[in-house]
Amino acid sequence: MASKAFRSRVVSVIGTGVIGRSWMRVFARAGLETRIWDRDSARIEQAWEWYKADLRRLRKELGLGKAETREERRSVVRCATLEEALAGARYVQESGPEDLAAKRELFAQLDAAAPPVAILASSTSALDLGAITEGLAGAPRCVVAHPVNPPHVVPVVEVLGGPATDPATVRRTLRFLARVGQVPVLLRRYTPGFLINRMQAALVREAINLVRDGVASVEAVDAVVREGLGLRWALMGPFGVANTNADGGIREYFTRYGASYQSLWADLATDTDLTPELIERLGTGTDLMTRRTSREVQRQWRDDAVARLRRLKESHPLTPPGDD
Amino acid sequence: MASKAFRSRVVSVIGTGVIGRSWMRVFARAGLETRIWDRDSARIEQAWEWYKADLRRLRKELGLGKAETREERRSVVRCATLEEALAGARYVQESGPEDLAAKRELFAQLDAAAPPVAILASSTSALDLGAITEGLAGAPRCVVAHPVNPPHVVPVVEVLGGPATDPATVRRTLRFLARVGQVPVLLRRYTPGFLINRMQAALVREAINLVRDGVASVEAVDAVVREGLGLRWALMGPFGVANTNADGGIREYFTRYGASYQSLWADLATDTDLTPELIERLGTGTDLMTRRTSREVQRQWRDDAVARLRRLKESHPLTPPGDD
Repeated sequence: MASKAFRSRVVSVIGTGVIGRSWMRVFARAGLETRIWDRDSARIEQAWEWYKADLRRLRKELGLGKAETREERRSVVRCATLEEALAGARYVQESGPEDLAAKRELFAQLDAAAPPVAILASSTSALDLGAITEGLAGAPRCVVAHPVNPPHVVPVVEVLGGPATDPATVRRTLRFLARVGQVPVLLRRYTPGFLINRMQAALVREAINLVRDGVASVEAVDAVVREGLGLRWALMGPFGVANTNADGGIREYFTRYGASYQSLWADLATDTDLTPELIERLGTGTDLMTRRTSREVQRQWRDDAVARLRRLKESHPLTPPGDD
Repeated sequence: MASKAFRSRVVSVIGTGVIGRSWMRVFARAGLETRIWDRDSARIEQAWEWYKADLRRLRKELGLGKAETREERRSVVRCATLEEALAGARYVQESGPEDLAAKRELFAQLDAAAPPVAILASSTSALDLGAITEGLAGAPRCVVAHPVNPPHVVPVVEVLGGPATDPATVRRTLRFLARVGQVPVLLRRYTPGFLINRMQAALVREAINLVRDGVASVEAVDAVVREGLGLRWALMGPFGVANTNADGGIREYFTRYGASYQSLWADLATDTDLTPELIERLGTGTDLMTRRTSREVQRQWRDDAVARLRRLKESHPLTPPGDD
């Protein structure tokens, strides 16, 4: 029974807002039967309309085959009840509101109705899994799987267990997410903001300080990321970059530049205060930078360009296939 | 006479180490007569051999035309003396050792021998231009043009004047660098590490802390940048990303997430100490991540992939040509 359910090809997407509807695409693209449900049934239809429209667009712009997208669409099952959405599921991805009481209530329902072997994964970016699953019989099968928005475009997923999570749940989640084409990474323990939001916050703070202190414009700061740092970070993380920036590798790099880093770190301001005036300055600078292009066009361009960038990396891998 | 020299198509590359030889390619690719010189004449020949070998490789791997690369090669003139390298130059890019006394001596020589209208630009990443040009008659024509390594691959250049720099020198430098295909950005004043190294240092510090504190492995930290944050930052800087991550734009984004940022900022550790033990842990983690691939192969892959990424952005621009 357990192993049968695990072998099922059914995945449940619970909550179909911006994150949930994107998860739906991840699973449908992987060929899994994707059962979707939302407390607000109108949101299920909105997600479905968005999905159909975007698949049409992708067929046109990215040259996806019609058969391919038709199959993807057929994988999605819109469900009227939570029980229907959970029937036969091996994996449940919850993307409800970021509110502890709401999440606790939802996880109690999921635990009661989902097949016993199903993993219950939350998209939460900030809540403590231990608090969500406190007192829950199924706490060992609960896990955090926090995506970057939107997950069908940006593949990385932060995976971590809570105090009561079975280590096997974490391992199965990592394997499952890799199999559907995401890039899951393991956090050994909880830290606020996980990895992504912490590193982003560190860079964003300095970016804001440079504008605040009059060193450079919003546009200049963005340009050095977009046409400098980001070109490398799309290919290698900070350690990979350090490792290739000295002939002797990362040890030589941090030994040689250690003192420079220490003195820069000491110089970075930490008193950033996001006052309404500062936010308005950032807004004005951003208006100047993007003036003629609507935000919707910018967002669409970004997501399409990320998809192209990922295909570029796949077709020119650092390590040729079979060489691992 | 002045305007004749300004209209000349001659550029001098002074110092042909790793940075200088890459600058040589930027100018040669732009079709300018590129006169190269180094105090150590053996280094001129090394740069030349490296250049020829790399052009051969590019012809093969990136499909550059033979005629194109032949013309590029013909643009380079190896010079036996500094005077010869400076003859007729409109723009001088200095990439000598990062040593104040050496730079001061070199700038005195450049100022004495370069045509009066030539801009004297330094690649320095850390030295204060005011100190380099103190007492120099030609201080008004001196400027910092700090590239990311290597500039023929990563286009951004940080441009700033010193206390004695003529604002026209800064403007001319920005225009000139844009014309040769780089992405120059203006710094309104000096700050240690400029923009790029400061933002990089902020992110690197948090990356190191996450490994140090046992939250995640080197590989996990790098993966969330490479398959997450970096995919967006190759296309938009932090302000562009914030602006597209809320329907109401950057003002709504920082208003809605301001408290989350403030609390994350307060949580980021600032006591990072690059001890030999910590560097060794980063080294061991990086070895695990990259074990089967040589550093030279990684570096070459990275540079080729950046070139492909830039071509991708050029062929799918956010704003179609003519729409500015």
